[in-house]
Amino acid sequence: MNDSLAAFFKPGTVAVIGASTKPTKLGHAVLKNLVEGGYVDQGTIYPINPGADEILGQTAYASVLEVPNQIDLAVIVIPYPNVPAALRECGQKGIPAAIVISAGFREAGMEGLERERELVQIAQEFNIRLIGPNCLGVIDTFTPLNASFSAGTPPSGPMAFMSQSGALGTAVLDIALAGRLGLSKFVSLGNKADVSETDLLQAWADDPHTRVIMIYSEGMPNGQEFIRVARQVTQKIPVIAIKSGVTQSGSRAVSSHTGSLAGSEQAYQAAFKQAGILRADSMESLFDMALAIGYQPSLSGERIAIVTNAGGPGILATDALERAGLSMARFQYETIHALEQYLPDAASAANPVDVLGDARADRYHFALETVAADPHVDGLLVLLTPQAMTEIEATAQVLGELAKNISKPILACFMGEARVQTGIEILNQAGIPNYPFPERAAGAFKAMADERQNRSRPALEIVQFEVDRPAVGKLFKQVESEGRVSIGDAEARTVLQAYGLRIPRSEVADTPEKAVEIASQIGFPVVLKIASPDILHKTDVGGVKVGLQDAEQVRDAYELMIYRAQRYLPEARLWGCLVQEMVPAGGVEVLIGMNRDPQFGPLVTFGLGGIYVETLKDVTFRVAPFSPSEAEQMLDEIRAHAILDGVRGKPALDKSAIVDVILRVAQLVQDFPTIAELDINPLMVYPRDQGAIAIDMRLILSHEPDMPSGAHK
Amino acid sequence: MNDSLAAFFKPGTVAVIGASTKPTKLGHAVLKNLVEGGYVDQGTIYPINPGADEILGQTAYASVLEVPNQIDLAVIVIPYPNVPAALRECGQKGIPAAIVISAGFREAGMEGLERERELVQIAQEFNIRLIGPNCLGVIDTFTPLNASFSAGTPPSGPMAFMSQSGALGTAVLDIALAGRLGLSKFVSLGNKADVSETDLLQAWADDPHTRVIMIYSEGMPNGQEFIRVARQVTQKIPVIAIKSGVTQSGSRAVSSHTGSLAGSEQAYQAAFKQAGILRADSMESLFDMALAIGYQPSLSGERIAIVTNAGGPGILATDALERAGLSMARFQYETIHALEQYLPDAASAANPVDVLGDARADRYHFALETVAADPHVDGLLVLLTPQAMTEIEATAQVLGELAKNISKPILACFMGEARVQTGIEILNQAGIPNYPFPERAAGAFKAMADERQNRSRPALEIVQFEVDRPAVGKLFKQVESEGRVSIGDAEARTVLQAYGLRIPRSEVADTPEKAVEIASQIGFPVVLKIASPDILHKTDVGGVKVGLQDAEQVRDAYELMIYRAQRYLPEARLWGCLVQEMVPAGGVEVLIGMNRDPQFGPLVTFGLGGIYVETLKDVTFRVAPFSPSEAEQMLDEIRAHAILDGVRGKPALDKSAIVDVILRVAQLVQDFPTIAELDINPLMVYPRDQGAIAIDMRLILSHEPDMPSGAHK
Repeated sequence: MNDSLAAFFKPGTVAVIGASTKPTKLGHAVLKNLVEGGYVDQGTIYPINPGADEILGQTAYASVLEVPNQIDLAVIVIPYPNVPAALRECGQKGIPAAIVISAGFREAGMEGLERERELVQIAQEFNIRLIGPNCLGVIDTFTPLNASFSAGTPPSGPMAFMSQSGALGTAVLDIALAGRLGLSKFVSLGNKADVSETDLLQAWADDPHTRVIMIYSEGMPNGQEFIRVARQVTQKIPVIAIKSGVTQSGSRAVSSHTGSLAGSEQAYQAAFKQAGILRADSMESLFDMALAIGYQPSLSGERIAIVTNAGGPGILATDALERAGLSMARFQYETIHALEQYLPDAASAANPVDVLGDARADRYHFALETVAADPHVDGLLVLLTPQAMTEIEATAQVLGELAKNISKPILACFMGEARVQTGIEILNQAGIPNYPFPERAAGAFKAMADERQNRSRPALEIVQFEVDRPAVGKLFKQVESEGRVSIGDAEARTVLQAYGLRIPRSEVADTPEKAVEIASQIGFPVVLKIASPDILHKTDVGGVKVGLQDAEQVRDAYELMIYRAQRYLPEARLWGCLVQEMVPAGGVEVLIGMNRDPQFGPLVTFGLGGIYVETLKDVTFRVAPFSPSEAEQMLDEIRAHAILDGVRGKPALDKSAIVDVILRVAQLVQDFPTIAELDINPLMVYPRDQGAIAIDMRLILSHEPDMPSGAHK
Repeated sequence: MNDSLAAFFKPGTVAVIGASTKPTKLGHAVLKNLVEGGYVDQGTIYPINPGADEILGQTAYASVLEVPNQIDLAVIVIPYPNVPAALRECGQKGIPAAIVISAGFREAGMEGLERERELVQIAQEFNIRLIGPNCLGVIDTFTPLNASFSAGTPPSGPMAFMSQSGALGTAVLDIALAGRLGLSKFVSLGNKADVSETDLLQAWADDPHTRVIMIYSEGMPNGQEFIRVARQVTQKIPVIAIKSGVTQSGSRAVSSHTGSLAGSEQAYQAAFKQAGILRADSMESLFDMALAIGYQPSLSGERIAIVTNAGGPGILATDALERAGLSMARFQYETIHALEQYLPDAASAANPVDVLGDARADRYHFALETVAADPHVDGLLVLLTPQAMTEIEATAQVLGELAKNISKPILACFMGEARVQTGIEILNQAGIPNYPFPERAAGAFKAMADERQNRSRPALEIVQFEVDRPAVGKLFKQVESEGRVSIGDAEARTVLQAYGLRIPRSEVADTPEKAVEIASQIGFPVVLKIASPDILHKTDVGGVKVGLQDAEQVRDAYELMIYRAQRYLPEARLWGCLVQEMVPAGGVEVLIGMNRDPQFGPLVTFGLGGIYVETLKDVTFRVAPFSPSEAEQMLDEIRAHAILDGVRGKPALDKSAIVDVILRVAQLVQDFPTIAELDINPLMVYPRDQGAIAIDMRLILSHEPDMPSGAHK
């Protein structure tokens, strides 16, 4: 996969199909970028244009088939009706890679979608890798190759960017052109008919010129594969992504834009976390994060030192760093002593170090060198306000020099706009990101801290429990053969037991007498529940009675329940009532569930049960498969996690039992893709070493089961 | 108060005490700004310098006392030891206003604090209003007056800015100098020895040149007065504030910086909300908000239309607007029809309107005019990416023209940096704020929506309940005379009853026999609680037993409780046990409390009770006094508010009973400033019209009661 994309970034020869002599045409712009972007000195360019002999100094040909040499990459910039034929010729010529810039495909309705399918077929037939259609093109600033119609070639740098939106790409390139950031690679993915984010991640993982990968995506159709690949890639290189279309209206906009299926916000959040991808919540923070990670050395701890010539901004920065979860470095004695010796009396030698408003560059220099040498400092944030005595450019140079000599990250916050401009340019040249306000610099440090945590993530570890899979398969077949999709409480017993979950003793009774008999065997008190495949929310119809103490109460409850069900839900099939053991008191109710995300697949949920927490929606998610350590993290992620550890003198709960159930549920829903939804609610969890009991479960099968072969065997 | 500050902004004559001939001195910079900033054409400047006859063309005097005319404003820029004497001379000369730029006061330790107190005394003696000391000065761009040592005078505009940090002020001025924003007034408040944020708010409320007031503050010593004034001012003009020092480390930085007392985060949040002040959580968003509110017409609804030449950014903007709580405008038929007629087929005529990547200015023009005319649209967000065909400057001009003709706000998001720069300057000149990314524009619209809500806020309405204040006063006197500070459950009865709260029937028993007798009178079952002024957390020592069914259980519980208390807390004074009526089942536990914030005073808390919510810290706050409508808002603000309205078939609770208790507690804590802390936990709330019962209360009096005279009478 890695090699198969090499032709897009370092081709020996490039053909531009649709190269035009007219400067207003995109086909001209692409050719011009190849020539002026420097590729002309590295490889051969073949303009393809039946009406020209030569364009921009390059010999033109009527067709790729007429080019005498091997072509590594074709860029197609012709009206959409002619694209399939042109791609077929590329195939005949043996070209391994094509960028289709032309629009008029999937984004243009049903006919366009058909045309796109045709492209994919041709590409598969001739083994061509395809970027686009409907895209801006590809840039590699190190080759150098600018195979796009961008306005100018961005400066080189450590950041690789892939964008599903070409227009957003133009904005990104324009930002790069202003000199604040440098790109290694730029790909406009367009409709992603073939090459996707997943492919590029894999291809860029080992790129020596790239220190950070940035993704703008509107949807990821093959979410499971994306997670799998990204898990590996992020062990090697930081990846930052922004996903648009997260809210309801946003999602509508996505569907009308590129026809992508918008995944639910929760699924993306879980998937990115599991994949080790840092998620930006705005375009601005995407750049803020990538600049720090791309240009500065990694953070090796979370202790930040601030050096400032202004108290107020120092406070704002301190606030922002703490809010972001970083800690203020506590200097060792030698550092404070040295600062106190050198700085004026009114200065602050503790963190944040206030070098005072009249500080010139030499005072910054001393303070920064002293603080940077302190082993208790992991990163430096340098604040500057343009006061009367401030030497803005000289201070920027001090930072640049310091950065050469230390391996700790330095971020700058030169506040202002007019007078600080030149200083900021000096910082840019030195590779020190500048943020206009302290809060944004703090956000960048937070991203560095998150990236540090990602690097130390363990690899995926899958636990396989011994379960009775055939029993569940048989039950589902039976249910499906009856044309049902929901599994009632009574049937759920089979599923839960087969997957090793503890459940209360219970049995279905079809008469009041039988119910009394079962209750006597189980032992009073018991719980009675209506047993029907058609009643999922039993409490809503009075279908659950707890604490029945004797035979009479069981008989009364049975008859009342059946009477009510027949009266209010005359259509429901009734099997009788389930007589169930009363589980021990002292448990805490939790919820474990699953629903299937259209892009990422099985999304497993954990949260506390009960009325408050349902109202508070205090739940967390993971896409199966996941490691036991990830299941453990879920327990820490809910806001009310303190309850699991025991509060107000209550004992700590059996967290390992919860993790066990989460993992078994994950295995169940992977074994049976036909399960569309599942809720164990409540799972009653007892104090440490006392386990957990699944009290109730609802389970919905998909109408059109789409199981891998053998899933039922 | 308003008038008393006029001399700071529109003085007829200004003296600069410490005006220097040396360009490197601050005293020179101030004089230069007065001259070059244009004041010299409006009024008379008197440089005060014993060693010069004339500076920068202005006749100098040795002392203000030698100036032949009236002086309206003195700017003092001399070493701190001489400031008191200079201020005294100002007093003798009858100068009504002085700006003390000199540092070396409160911020410089105990000696400095003494010096500052001396300044305040002199100011009071001579009735001088004082800005500073330790500040940058004052600017009014409309007078024009630049009485500061800023580097240059910022352009005029609708934004007034006050900053406790002078250094931050320099950064703000530098941003203004770059042309992106214009200031009406700028005040560096310094140590706030006299003039505070509250004074300036009052002075600026009716300023015809100001459309938005911005505040950077590190602490507000007289919080109650600030809220009272700001409540009125924000009815006339929007106020946006950023408060630094909100986190723990941040607060430490505040104390070491200006010696301000940092108020708790919760108190600020409540106070700003009650005062109608919009709160910015970063410097960047402070400007983002103020630009939109200051330069654009008010938002009259929350329906935003997006016009974009790029799908991706359109989705990002849609996401961000929805996340910010705004809604996407749904166009009327005529709008969609007109857009469909005019725009190319591939364009989107629904919101977000996608005019496509090849849109020139004319297409933007048509789309914007059409959308702006739709009565279902309250505000416009215009996105632009610099694509091949894009006419950046012409499109900016289209926006400028449109803004002249409509009364709806327009915000722009021209994305990029290099090629869009000139277009952004055109937007700036037309008063259309540009945001580099869609998320920031959405944040600005959110601020406009919040401002709209603020405008319609009702005035403060205080409810006074008839209560038995003397009974409480008498109890507190008794408690204080015994040297105690905590009020136990048994005594709390008196307080709760005196302020009209429902409480369970109860009585203290000092023997087991008495307990049984009281229980028989109340009726079984009963609750037994240990009665001791020294045991606040009764459950922790087994000091609460509920559901005691008969005489034997009461006797057993009594003896066990006393035994345990004596054993584990031998120091505690024991009064016996409180025998209490069992309150009806079916209630929901809530918590109502109060603690006293050092800056804002009584901070009243409301939240749900119980273990989950305590863990989740789902509570909300208000500073007393507040209106009944504000107490009602508290109920809606907790995350679990749905529980109050009944969930899962449970009945809606008696919300008016909760509001009643909140208001009575607010009255109690205002009547008795000696109450340091108070908790009613739980208040048991029953379904609608069934009221609420205060089950338990703890109350702590302050060690050093600081009551207004008559509070006990």
